[in-house]
Order: sequence, then C-alpha cells, then structure tokens
Amino acid sequence: MRILVIHGPNLNLLGEREPGIYGKNDLAHVNGAILTRAKELGVECEVFQSNHEGEILVRLHEARHAFDGVVLNAGAYTHYSYAIRDAIAAIRIPCVEVHISNVHAREEFRHTSVIAPACLGVVCGFGGDSYLLALEGLVRHCAGQKTL
Amino acid sequence: MRILVIHGPNLNLLGEREPGIYGKNDLAHVNGAILTRAKELGVECEVFQSNHEGEILVRLHEARHAFDGVVLNAGAYTHYSYAIRDAIAAIRIPCVEVHISNVHAREEFRHTSVIAPACLGVVCGFGGDSYLLALEGLVRHCAGQKTL
Amino acid sequence: MRILVIHGPNLNLLGEREPGIYGKNDLAHVNGAILTRAKELGVECEVFQSNHEGEILVRLHEARHAFDGVVLNAGAYTHYSYAIRDAIAAIRIPCVEVHISNVHAREEFRHTSVIAPACLGVVCGFGGDSYLLALEGLVRHCAGQKTL
Amino acid sequence: MRILVIHGPNLNLLGEREPGIYGKNDLAHVNGAILTRAKELGVECEVFQSNHEGEILVRLHEARHAFDGVVLNAGAYTHYSYAIRDAIAAIRIPCVEVHISNVHAREEFRHTSVIAPACLGVVCGFGGDSYLLALEGLVRHCAGQKTL
Amino acid sequence: MRILVIHGPNLNLLGEREPGIYGKNDLAHVNGAILTRAKELGVECEVFQSNHEGEILVRLHEARHAFDGVVLNAGAYTHYSYAIRDAIAAIRIPCVEVHISNVHAREEFRHTSVIAPACLGVVCGFGGDSYLLALEGLVRHCAGQKTL
Amino acid sequence: MRILVIHGPNLNLLGEREPGIYGKNDLAHVNGAILTRAKELGVECEVFQSNHEGEILVRLHEARHAFDGVVLNAGAYTHYSYAIRDAIAAIRIPCVEVHISNVHAREEFRHTSVIAPACLGVVCGFGGDSYLLALEGLVRHCAGQKTL
Amino acid sequence: MRILVIHGPNLNLLGEREPGIYGKNDLAHVNGAILTRAKELGVECEVFQSNHEGEILVRLHEARHAFDGVVLNAGAYTHYSYAIRDAIAAIRIPCVEVHISNVHAREEFRHTSVIAPACLGVVCGFGGDSYLLALEGLVRHCAGQKTL
Amino acid sequence: MRILVIHGPNLNLLGEREPGIYGKNDLAHVNGAILTRAKELGVECEVFQSNHEGEILVRLHEARHAFDGVVLNAGAYTHYSYAIRDAIAAIRIPCVEVHISNVHAREEFRHTSVIAPACLGVVCGFGGDSYLLALEGLVRHCAGQKTL
Amino acid sequence: MRILVIHGPNLNLLGEREPGIYGKNDLAHVNGAILTRAKELGVECEVFQSNHEGEILVRLHEARHAFDGVVLNAGAYTHYSYAIRDAIAAIRIPCVEVHISNVHAREEFRHTSVIAPACLGVVCGFGGDSYLLALEGLVRHCAGQKTL
Amino acid sequence: MRILVIHGPNLNLLGEREPGIYGKNDLAHVNGAILTRAKELGVECEVFQSNHEGEILVRLHEARHAFDGVVLNAGAYTHYSYAIRDAIAAIRIPCVEVHISNVHAREEFRHTSVIAPACLGVVCGFGGDSYLLALEGLVRHCAGQKTL
Amino acid sequence: MRILVIHGPNLNLLGEREPGIYGKNDLAHVNGAILTRAKELGVECEVFQSNHEGEILVRLHEARHAFDGVVLNAGAYTHYSYAIRDAIAAIRIPCVEVHISNVHAREEFRHTSVIAPACLGVVCGFGGDSYLLALEGLVRHCAGQKTL
Amino acid sequence: MRILVIHGPNLNLLGEREPGIYGKNDLAHVNGAILTRAKELGVECEVFQSNHEGEILVRLHEARHAFDGVVLNAGAYTHYSYAIRDAIAAIRIPCVEVHISNVHAREEFRHTSVIAPACLGVVCGFGGDSYLLALEGLVRHCAGQKTL
Repeated sequence: MRILVIHGPNLNLLGEREPGIYGKNDLAHVNGAILTRAKELGVECEVFQSNHEGEILVRLHEARHAFDGVVLNAGAYTHYSYAIRDAIAAIRIPCVEVHISNVHAREEFRHTSVIAPACLGVVCGFGGDSYLLALEGLVRHCAGQKTL
Repeated sequence: MRILVIHGPNLNLLGEREPGIYGKNDLAHVNGAILTRAKELGVECEVFQSNHEGEILVRLHEARHAFDGVVLNAGAYTHYSYAIRDAIAAIRIPCVEVHISNVHAREEFRHTSVIAPACLGVVCGFGGDSYLLALEGLVRHCAGQKTL
Repeated sequence: MRILVIHGPNLNLLGEREPGIYGKNDLAHVNGAILTRAKELGVECEVFQSNHEGEILVRLHEARHAFDGVVLNAGAYTHYSYAIRDAIAAIRIPCVEVHISNVHAREEFRHTSVIAPACLGVVCGFGGDSYLLALEGLVRHCAGQKTL
Repeated sequence: MRILVIHGPNLNLLGEREPGIYGKNDLAHVNGAILTRAKELGVECEVFQSNHEGEILVRLHEARHAFDGVVLNAGAYTHYSYAIRDAIAAIRIPCVEVHISNVHAREEFRHTSVIAPACLGVVCGFGGDSYLLALEGLVRHCAGQKTL
Repeated sequence: MRILVIHGPNLNLLGEREPGIYGKNDLAHVNGAILTRAKELGVECEVFQSNHEGEILVRLHEARHAFDGVVLNAGAYTHYSYAIRDAIAAIRIPCVEVHISNVHAREEFRHTSVIAPACLGVVCGFGGDSYLLALEGLVRHCAGQKTL
Repeated sequence: MRILVIHGPNLNLLGEREPGIYGKNDLAHVNGAILTRAKELGVECEVFQSNHEGEILVRLHEARHAFDGVVLNAGAYTHYSYAIRDAIAAIRIPCVEVHISNVHAREEFRHTSVIAPACLGVVCGFGGDSYLLALEGLVRHCAGQKTL
Repeated sequence: MRILVIHGPNLNLLGEREPGIYGKNDLAHVNGAILTRAKELGVECEVFQSNHEGEILVRLHEARHAFDGVVLNAGAYTHYSYAIRDAIAAIRIPCVEVHISNVHAREEFRHTSVIAPACLGVVCGFGGDSYLLALEGLVRHCAGQKTL
Repeated sequence: MRILVIHGPNLNLLGEREPGIYGKNDLAHVNGAILTRAKELGVECEVFQSNHEGEILVRLHEARHAFDGVVLNAGAYTHYSYAIRDAIAAIRIPCVEVHISNVHAREEFRHTSVIAPACLGVVCGFGGDSYLLALEGLVRHCAGQKTL
Repeated sequence: MRILVIHGPNLNLLGEREPGIYGKNDLAHVNGAILTRAKELGVECEVFQSNHEGEILVRLHEARHAFDGVVLNAGAYTHYSYAIRDAIAAIRIPCVEVHISNVHAREEFRHTSVIAPACLGVVCGFGGDSYLLALEGLVRHCAGQKTL
Repeated sequence: MRILVIHGPNLNLLGEREPGIYGKNDLAHVNGAILTRAKELGVECEVFQSNHEGEILVRLHEARHAFDGVVLNAGAYTHYSYAIRDAIAAIRIPCVEVHISNVHAREEFRHTSVIAPACLGVVCGFGGDSYLLALEGLVRHCAGQKTL
Repeated sequence: MRILVIHGPNLNLLGEREPGIYGKNDLAHVNGAILTRAKELGVECEVFQSNHEGEILVRLHEARHAFDGVVLNAGAYTHYSYAIRDAIAAIRIPCVEVHISNVHAREEFRHTSVIAPACLGVVCGFGGDSYLLALEGLVRHCAGQKTL
Repeated sequence: MRILVIHGPNLNLLGEREPGIYGKNDLAHVNGAILTRAKELGVECEVFQSNHEGEILVRLHEARHAFDGVVLNAGAYTHYSYAIRDAIAAIRIPCVEVHISNVHAREEFRHTSVIAPACLGVVCGFGGDSYLLALEGLVRHCAGQKTL
C-alpha cells in the first residue's frame, strides 16, 4: 500500500510559524515521524509540501494511479479551494483532511472546510500527531482492516 | 490513566440505525473494540451512553475528578447543545469530539459543531474506528507522549 | 395495528396554558378523544407525555418494535431538537408531526421544523383535532389503505 | 355547508408528473375521492384547478360569498405568492393549506410557505389523502363540530 | 395629458377587505374620487383593476403609447413581481408606486418593493388619498410644472 | 392648524449638493414654496433645518404641544436613527416621511427606513414637490378632510 | 423533431425596450431568425410569447406531447417563478434557459435563476443569438447527435 | 410571598468552573446569600439546580401553584431552549432572567436569549449579586411595591 | 462615592411617552427616586438627560475624573451608537446599561445592544426600578462590597 | 480570427473524472472536436489547460495581443477567483464562460460565478458541446456577424 | 492650499484612552505633529475635534469654501454615520479617511466603513502617523503633484 | 533596512488595464518611483510581481530573513486568499496592504480584505502614490522612527 501525505501552504514554516498554535517541530521532523509511523504500519509513504494550489491539484491527480490514499493538510486552502475539493472527488482514492490545531477554536473562517465533503474523514487538534492518527485510520480503511 | 467514552443520543441504536451511514456494528460491539484498544494502550476505560442531554452533562461533571480525558460522540447534540460545550469548558480535562460518519458530507446542519471550540480536537468519518483513533490520540495527549 | 401518540414539552399544561392559543381542553380530555378515535379506527393506541427530550428519544426508540406509527407533537423541541429528528429517522416507522396551533401564524422561530424532514407529514392548526386528523391519516398510511 | 377545493399550478398533471413524489392518481381520480368524501361528510363541494395565479385570486374572491371554507393546494405559488396570502386574509372564510408530498423533506425553498400565516392550518405529506384530511378538518371547523 | 391608474391584486375587494387597514371605501368610490381629481387637474384619466400579473404587464405595455404616466398600486405584486418592474422600465413613461396603508408599519415582507427602483416615486400611508397625491405629483411632473 | 417641516442633515446644502440627484433649488427656495403652499392650504407652517440628530429630537418633542403634524425629511438619519423613530412614536402627532429623490433607485442602504414604521406615510421621488404633496396629504389627514 | 420556443414577460417589446440591453431587433425579427435556423437544422419549430405566467405553464404542459424540447426565455419570471420550474420538471422534455443579455453583469436579483436547476442548460449574453445557440444545442441533444 | 430560584446547567460547578468568568463562590455559598437576602426581604425562597432541561420545565410548571415568581439562570439553555421559553409563558407567574457574567461581552452566541421575550426582565454582569438584584426587583414587582 | 445617572434620547418625555411601555412616572419623579435611593446607599449621585449623542459622549468623558461609576439608559442609541460604546471603554469606570422596559419582548432591533459589551452589566424590564437595581448593584461593585 | 480555449482545474481528468457528470470523452477528444469546429468556422484556435490559477491569469494576459476572444471553462475557480475576473476585465477581448454540466442543478456553491460579470456570456449544461456552442457564439460576436 | 483635519468622537481622550490601541500621545501632541508636517508640506492646516456628529457635518459643510481637502478620523461614526458620508459626497472636496489603529484587526463592526465609498482613500494602522501619511497623500493629490 | 514590494495578480498590466481605475502609469514606471522614494528614505528596496498565489506565498516566506518589512498589493487575492493572510502572520515582519484605487467605492466584494487583519495597516485610493505612502509609513515603523 502507498500513501501520499500532502502539506499545503505555509506548512514549510512549521516550527517557526506561530509555534503557540502549530508547535515547535519543523516540517522535516514531522515528516520523519510520519515516515516512521508509515514503516511501522507497513506501508510506503511519500511526503510533499507545496504552497501552490495548482501543484497540489496536480499532485492529487498523479496520486490516483500511484497511491492508495492521501493524507491532506490543505492549510488555508481548506477554507476556499473548491478546486482541491473537485480534485479529491475526481481521483477516487480516499483522502483524509488533517489540521494540526483545533480549527474550530480559532477564527470563524476556519470553521468551514470546503474540501471535507469530498474527503473520507477529518482529524484535527492533536498537533503533529493529527497526521499520525489520520495515517493510521486511512491505512486501515484502505486495507479493509478497520476494527469496526 | 482513566478515559471516559460517552455516546450521545440515538447511538444505542447503532447497527440497526441507518446502517449505510453508521455501519452494522451494534454499540456493544463498538464498546468491546474500544475497551480492547484501551487495554492495549494500557489505560482504564469506561463507556457510557445516554439519550439525555442532562445526563451527559452530569457524567462530564463527574468525570473531572475520576478521569483524565473524555472521548465524546455527542450525536445530534453536537449541533446545538451549548450546555455540553460549557460543561466541557468547565471540567478542564481534555475532550475529543468523535463522529462515526463524515458529518461534512451530510446535511448542512451537521457541518457546524457548537462543542468543538471547547474540545481538544475532532475525529470523524472513519466509522467506528473514529473512536479508536480519538482514544489513541487522547491517551498520548494525556500521557504527554505525543510523537510530535 | 398499534399507534403511539407523544406529547412533548409543556403539553401537560394544556387547557390552562395560553388557552387563546392552545384551547381550553386539558391533556386528559385530548387523550380521551384520541383514544376514542383510535378505537373507532380499530387500532390500539397509547399516549405519552414528557417534558424531557431524552425521554422522548427513548420512547421513540422503544416504539420501533412495539408500534406501527407515531403521532408526535414535539412542542418547542420541534424547532431545535435534531436529536429527535435523528431518532425518527432511526426507527423507521412513520411519524406524523402535529401542532395544535397554526405555528406559521406565530413567532418566526416557530416557522421552522427541524424534525419535519424525517416525518411522513405534518398537520397543524386544527386545535386538538390536529391529533385526530394525524391519527386518521397515519392509520390509513400504515394499513396501506389510503384512499389516494 | 359548501367547501371549495382549489388545485394550483401543475396539479393538472397529477398522475403523470414525477409520480414518485406526487403519486400515480390523476387529478380526476383525486377529485372523485374528494367529492365522495365531501358527500360522506354531508357537505357540498366544488373542485377547481388553475395554473394562473390571477384566476386563483378571483376564485378565492368569489368564494367568500358562495362557500364556507377553502381547501387550497397552491403548488409552487405557496412559496412566493403574497397575493394569494392577501386574498386569503381578505375573504375571511377559513382556508386550509394542503400539499401532497412532505414539502419539508424536499428542496429548501419548499420549506417556506408565504400563505400559511393567513390560513387556518396545514396538512401535508399524506399523498392525495392530504386533501381528504384537510377537508374533514375544515368541515368540522366550519360546522363548529370539532371534537376538541 | 392622459394618466392611467392601475389597481393590482385584491384591490377589487376594497371597502370589504380588512377595513381597519384599507379603509371603508369600495373601489368604485375610490375610482370616483380619482376621476374627479383628474378632472380638476385637467387631465384625462382611466382606471383599471386586475388580479392577473400578466394583465397588468399588458396594460402597462399598452399604456406606453396611450398615456403620459401611470399611477400603480401593485398590491402584493409590489414585493416580488420583477416582471412588473421590467415592464415599468421598458415603457419609459413615468410610473408612481402607491399604497393605501403604510406598508412599513406592517409585516417585514411589505417593507421591500421590487418595483420602486423603476418608478418615479412612491406615495403610501394616506389611505385612498395616496392615489390623489400620487396623481397630482405625477401630473405636475409630466406637465413639466413641478413647483420645485 | 399648525404644521412643522423639518429638514435633516445636509439639506442646508440643497441646490449645491449633487444637483443631479437633489435638484437646483436651494433650501430657501424650497422653504418659500412650502410656506406658499401652506398658506394656500390655510395652515400655519414653520420650517426648520438641522444637521444635529439631537436637535431634531428636541424639535420633535417641542412640536407635540405646538403643532398638529410634522413633515420630516430626515436625510441620512432615515436609515439608522432609531432615536428619531422613538421620538415620532412618543409625540403622538402624525409625521410624514419625505425624500426628494427616489431612494429606492439609489444605494442599497437607502432602501431601508427605520423611521417609516412610526410615521403616517411616506412620499418620495417628486423632487422638492415631495414636500408639497406630503404637506397636502398631512393637512387633509389632520383636518379629518381626506377625500377617501 | 419539434421544438417550442417560449418568450416570457416583456419580450413582446423587444427592439423598443431598453435597446442598449436587449438590442434593436423586434420580436418578429428574432422569431424569423429562429425559424430560419430551425429549418436549417431540419426541425419544426413554433414560437410563442406570453406575459402571463399561467399561460407559460399551460404551454409547457401542452408541449410535453407535442414537442421534443423547449427553448425558454422566461424573462423576469426566471428569478421567482417556482411554478415554471415545477412545470419544466413535470413535463420531462428537455428545456434550455435563454437570456439575451448577460444577466450576471446586471442587478443582483438577476444572478439567481430558480428555473435553471430543472433545465438542461443555460445560454446567455449573446444577444438574440442566444436563442440560436440554445436551439442548436437542444436539437443536437434531442437528436442524440451531440458532438461530444 | 414565595420565590423560586432556578440554577440551570453547569451551575453546580460554580466556584470551580472558569472562576475568572463565574467567580470563586460555590453554589452553596451563592444559595446561602440568596436565602439570606430573601429573609431580609421577608419572602420565602427555595433554590433548585438542575442540568436537565426537562427537570427545569417540570419545576417551572410546579412553580405556578406554589410560587409567586421565579429567578432563573438558565445557563446555556438561555440560548436555545424554546421549551423553557414556552414554559415561562405558560405558567403566568413572573420570571427574571439572570446571568452571573456579562454575556454580551463574551461569545456571539451568548448575545441572544430565546427566553428573555417571555420574562419580566433581565439582570446580568454583577457576578453572584445578579441573583440578589433580580430577587429584590422581582419581590418588589410581585408585592406591587415597586418604587417607580 | 459618586455615581452619574445618564438618561438618553426621548427619556425627557417619560410619563407622557407610550405610558403602557414606559410607565406613568415622569423623569423628575424617576430622578427623585434615584436620588433618594442613592442617599440611602450613602453615595452622591447626579442625574443628567440629553437627546444629543455628542453630549452623552462628553458627559461620559467628564465622568471619568468626577465619578466612580455610571448608570446609563442610552435609549435608542443603545442599538447603534458605537461611539457611546467606545466612550464607555475609554473612560475605564464601570457603567451599567439600564432599560425601563424588557427590550427583548419588543421589536427585533431592540434585542441588540452595541454598548453592552463595554459595560459591567445590564438591568432591564423592572420599569423605573431598573435604575434603582442598577444603582444598587453598581454601588456595591464600586465599593468592593458585593455580597458574592 | 484567433480564439483561445482555456480549460481550468481538474479538466485534464475529463473522461475519467465523475463521468456521470462530466461525460466519457477525455480532454484530447474534446479538444479535437473544438479544433474541428473552429476549422469549420474558419478561425484559428488554440487550446490550453492548466490547474494553476496563476497560469490561467498569465495566459489570459498574453491572449490580449494574440487572440480575438476566449472560451473559458474555469472549473472550480469560477466560484472564487476574483483574480480571473479581474484578468478578463483587464484584457478587453471578449470571454465566454463555459461549463460541461448544468452547474445550477448541482451544489449551492456552484450556482454563483464570480467571473460571469466580466464575461460576454455563459453556456452550460450541454456536455462537451457547451464548448462548441460557446465557440460558435463567440466567433460570430467577434466577427460582427451575429444573426441578431 | 488649506487642509482641514477633523478628529471625531472620543479622540479628545487620546493618550489616555486604551493606550495599547491608540498610543500614548495626547491629541495636542498629535495636532502639533500634524501642523508641523503641514508646514513642511507648505500648506495651511486647521485641526478640529468634536464628539458631535452634527458638528462634524457642519464643519465639513463650511470646509467646502474654506479648504482644499479634509483628513477625517470619524472614530466610531465611521461605522454608521451615513450622514457624514452624505456630507463628504456633498462638499466635493477630497476627503481621506484615517484610523490610528488597524481597524481590520479588531471587532467585526470596525471592518465596515460607511463613509469610505465617498472618500478619496483610506490610511489606517500607522498609529498617529496615519494622519501624517494621509495629509501628505492628500496634499499631493490636491496640488496635482502626485508622483504617480 | 530592506523593504520588499510585492505586486499581485494582474498588476503587470498596469497602465493598460482599466486606466480610468488604475491610472496610466505602467508597472515599470510605478516601480521606478518606488525605488526612487526608497532611495530618498535611505532604504534598500526590491520589487516583485507575480500572478501566482503560491509564488507570493514563497516570496513572503523568503522575505522573513531578508527584509524588514513588506508593502503588498495583493490585487484580487486580497479578497479571498486566507493563505496569504496566514503567510503574513507567519513571517512576523510587518506588512502594509496597498491598493491603487479606493476599493470601498467599487464592487461589494472589494470591501472585504481577508489579509488586512494580519497586516500592520492599509493605504488605498491614492493611485500609484499609495505605494509611496505605504513605503514611507512602513520604513518609519520599522526604523522605530514614527513621528507619533
């Protein structure tokens, strides 16, 4: 099984950017933990970061033949990119929406996700561990090995 | 460590209620899987179901002295029970909001959670496994053992 | 055939409560007329009143094995109890929404029913006779004996 | 006692139009059942269908001297014809709003009735039987013979 | 100079319809007063009433060659007939919107006029005299004899 | 009979201010025409202009003992001064709202009058003649000499 | 194949009505071009204009047996006639919504079409040629001869 | 005279719950002060706390025969319990809405009270003293001994 | 301790203005009662009424050096004067918002207070006694002598 | 004459992406049909697809010197890219908005186009033929050869 | 060249009022800096502060003959004074809106300026220097000496 | 000190694009003036234009180590790019929002800036000089040399 993890806009600044909200780990560290967990789960995993909406679209498109599922932290694009929503619906492999912070405890505009309706599910608020939980849930889903 | 899992209104009908949305496992089965996972994680766990908003409030209140965290599927109360939100804020132990289905892919009114702003985080869309992921994330959070 | 009639919050005060709106008959009187009509229609009927949202949920749940249909005056819960809506959808026996007054001729908030989308139909504005018409319509529906 | 039954726009297509929603009976069949029920109830009844908002207004106006009450399925005009609302208020004989389908379980725009505030009450969701229940309720109201 | 006065839906019931709001004079009486005032103002005047939106449109169309201005009480159509608005804009002779009652002191929906933006001006709240004031103002406007 | 005419904010600039909208006559000229018309109608009339919301309130208060009615062009205060609305309701002499331009054909915010619900009626769109028509209508109303 | 072209309210004034928006061709001219194009496309075509919402409903109803598709410029009815929307859904032959002007570049209320959800598609902004493009697209659709 | 004081959801946690907002006094302490003040005012007083909406309804119902007035801090139910509003309207003894904090200085959802329209008045923002002021005002009102 | 009581627009008409809503006591009488109560509470008190928003601002400004707290009935300014809100926030002495009537039981616009977020608390609905309760609560607050 | 056809985000997946909505033809096939039709119409045509909002902007910019018109299917960018709207307004060559599906029969967010106000017109709902109709209409417009 | 600088409500408290937001300089200091900069720019400058909306209107009116431009910090009036907007539009000399703080980073109601549409431009967020930048920009504009 | 000036989408067309709104100077000319002013202010300055949201994000990210502040005209992205807002908040160097035109005097959607809450301040409406004023204000801010 192959899983793609996509980090959206501004996530390259992790560790440095508003650490009170996003934590002190930088992206490399987060990616390291993701890859380690993937190995533990017995799946291949690739990580990708882009600040470009179009590149995220293209990467999602390519993923449909190369991956079994996607973990996606679309950053601020979560709140307005109907193009990403359409891409997720188009590629027909499951996608999990992830946020590091609890977006519902922040500004009003972060309470609405335009991509969630096209996703399998959502994990948010566990800091960087949100990625790990999403990965784990997605892997079980793709493997048809959900406990419940 | 002790974790309380609360199932809100109508969840006693799991397995029978709209199985296309909520799955075929009944609540006993779901609880079994939750307790198993808790044991694996090395934590004590108690499960509780109520259709009464007031009982959920009381149980949350009691939990503040007896538990280290709460996994809460508030069912439809998620969308209007400001009382539950206040209870979560009052008890000062972390609470994770859980949904079996991806609420964002359903009716408009399910897209808004009035309790999420008082929670640690949210997990939804993984079927019954949402509980397991939430439990895992919460346990790590309470243990100060988050990977990231 | 067995029909359950549920009276929601504040309906125990019928006859005494704002009689200009809700009429002068008390609940016992209304229930008497309902049971009489049920007998005329050849169906068993049980009446139930509760001010507790949770009790109404539980009663709806129990009804799914014991009754063929429900006549429900959810009172003010009509306008915000998504939990009752979910219960109606969950139990898969038909439910008719009833109101004594014409809710559309009153305050704005009474114009929206969050439970109606899960119901078979709605009857309102005929005073206590709303129950009788709903009962009659529901019995014919359940018996597969609608005229049209 | 004399009752007028008005069928609004597109109801001449009953039986043929979206039968999954509106049923398989054509308007003649529905009218037959209405007239039969009227006879049973001991009242004179006239049926009228028009696709023209203006004709419905005129018919309502005429009814004020010739009828004791009106059963009105205003079809889509229900949702925007303030002129029909004004006519109902003007003629001072009671009018019952009827819908074949449960409008609350359909598109958003069908959830609002601009005419209901001027009506005695509403019956919807019982298929063609909605007319019969409305007729029965209205006759009892006009005769001062409501059970409750 | 020739002026057309159009009475819209339900205005044929004047005198009888909610006299507390619309006054006790019937339409013939109102028309008599209008024609008298027109004569005093030295203009020809024609009165027309219709409950049909389409007939009002047609009458407005015809007016463009036969009249110099229109006094229009569009009744409830005021609040939703964009077709009448378009007709007024199309015919390029001035039109004054009139209401017998002060629509702003009544239900919310009566506070919005979709036709006013295409009119010369509005007069409301003077009872039947609203027509006379509108007529006077329109005649002076058409005659290029406004005092100011 | 005594009538007070109040001109609100910015109306002292009449003739000079956006003449395409408000006309070329200055306030003195408008007042001259108002006083002339008042004389013709056989009533005493006083004119008053103020840019101060508070002064308009005070003038309205004083008017309740000294005048039989008020013609009020509240200018932009029309759209937000609930204080003026309260004053009109408090003084219990009739007040007519006037606008020189057709406010409904201008910016969205000018379509709502917060004072109209407390007024007798509204006249707008006739240029300076709006005052004259309002005066005429008000005088007849106060004199109990409405034609209709 | 037979196609019906319906022109809604105020379109009889084409050529004369706001020519800057709707063009200088009158309706006869437009109809001539439509019929010519129909002949080129090898289909029978009938044109119909009405200012009456009810007549448009009736014509749509009749069309279901006599025509294979409808080109409909519903004029201002586009923005509020849920009755026309219902008629289009009822007749089960494809209908194309047409506008001469680009309604999206005009007033806010013209941006919403209540009939479009029941149509096959929409063409607007090409002046009178909008009809010709719609006709062409509809004919290909009905003939099962779409290029793509 | 007998007054009932009702504390709604989460108020049993007073003193412990977000003390920066709700103060450091626990409920027993607050109740003590209320009873003391009642004694000073010469009235009998009973205090009651419940987290259950239904219990609050029932207590309000019972109060109508046993008490002269109610002081009600409905907690979060203030913002959505139309059932409590209906109960207050039903029992016809005066009820004063109380809040410890200034709800208007907190989250948006706390700015709207659905129960206030059925109450005599509102006191908020004085900490626990809000109860005392409400009690004092209510007692004077019930005794017909208001100073003004 | 020194307390300033400010009466806003139209309150000079107390006793005469809509007595069904505002009571029959005139402002002098109300002020007398306020001053008496102040004396009982052992504080100096000054009363001030103005219809001018600007004067209220100035008085609030001056109060910051001369008074320990303010009781403010801002009348209709309550609903739109962000300037008064800013003044209250600027002067840093506590201010209590007061209303004679229960504003929540009246028109929609009276349900929103733009000044409340800057105040200590709100008292409304006790008639003129609202001032006395507010005064009492404020004095205790300023004296650091709240019971709770 | 030279026409540029731009396909926006996710349209590279045509034929594969939700074929029930977007059809079974892939983009190459659609482009082939477009180029063929262009040749028939005697115009040069270039096709371009991009998932990048910025690239679409740049291509539109370049088009202003190299093309006479643009056919644009902006995909999901239609609903939020004010940048594309500004680009269309900036380049001053006509642009036609195209959609394969009838966007008005789908999710709410697809009913609003932020780019349409800057376009010449819109064609939607004809499947891939929407492009061909748009092309034809645009070519006639640019050539000054519209039939009407 | 002559420039008028107007400070609106509460700005007389500068330096003392919420210094974290508005800075520690008092108004005299700010005015000193403005006059110094004006001298450097070679223009005459007058400063004016008022808490009275009406006085600001009057001052704007007078400015039309005596000044070439206005720098206006309307304080909270920015958000609701359509009267000031009208005054700015009336006087036909350019006006620049200024705010000391970045209003967009504060409460929601401060994000909307009802006067900005009538202004030349806006400067906010530079503390007291906002005035200086606005002055500089306005002077160049009035002198026809803008760099760009 | 080093300042980065970023021009967003469509600004490469300056001078040519809607010159009535954006002026006749092309981007090179504007940049020339900016660099000249920077030199006068004694700061290093770099200019950058991009139509790609992602490139603007990247450039902002890079700026955090290389520049002391940013002047940003985000063009249409101003109104929806929450990603740019997040970037500005992330980089922790001050950013000033600039617009050439007075966006508040244009279409509704231009009145809302989603990036302003993360900026230091805003300058708009001075044509190209907006950049110069913003630069000047920003330089003084960064240098700790604000006059006030």
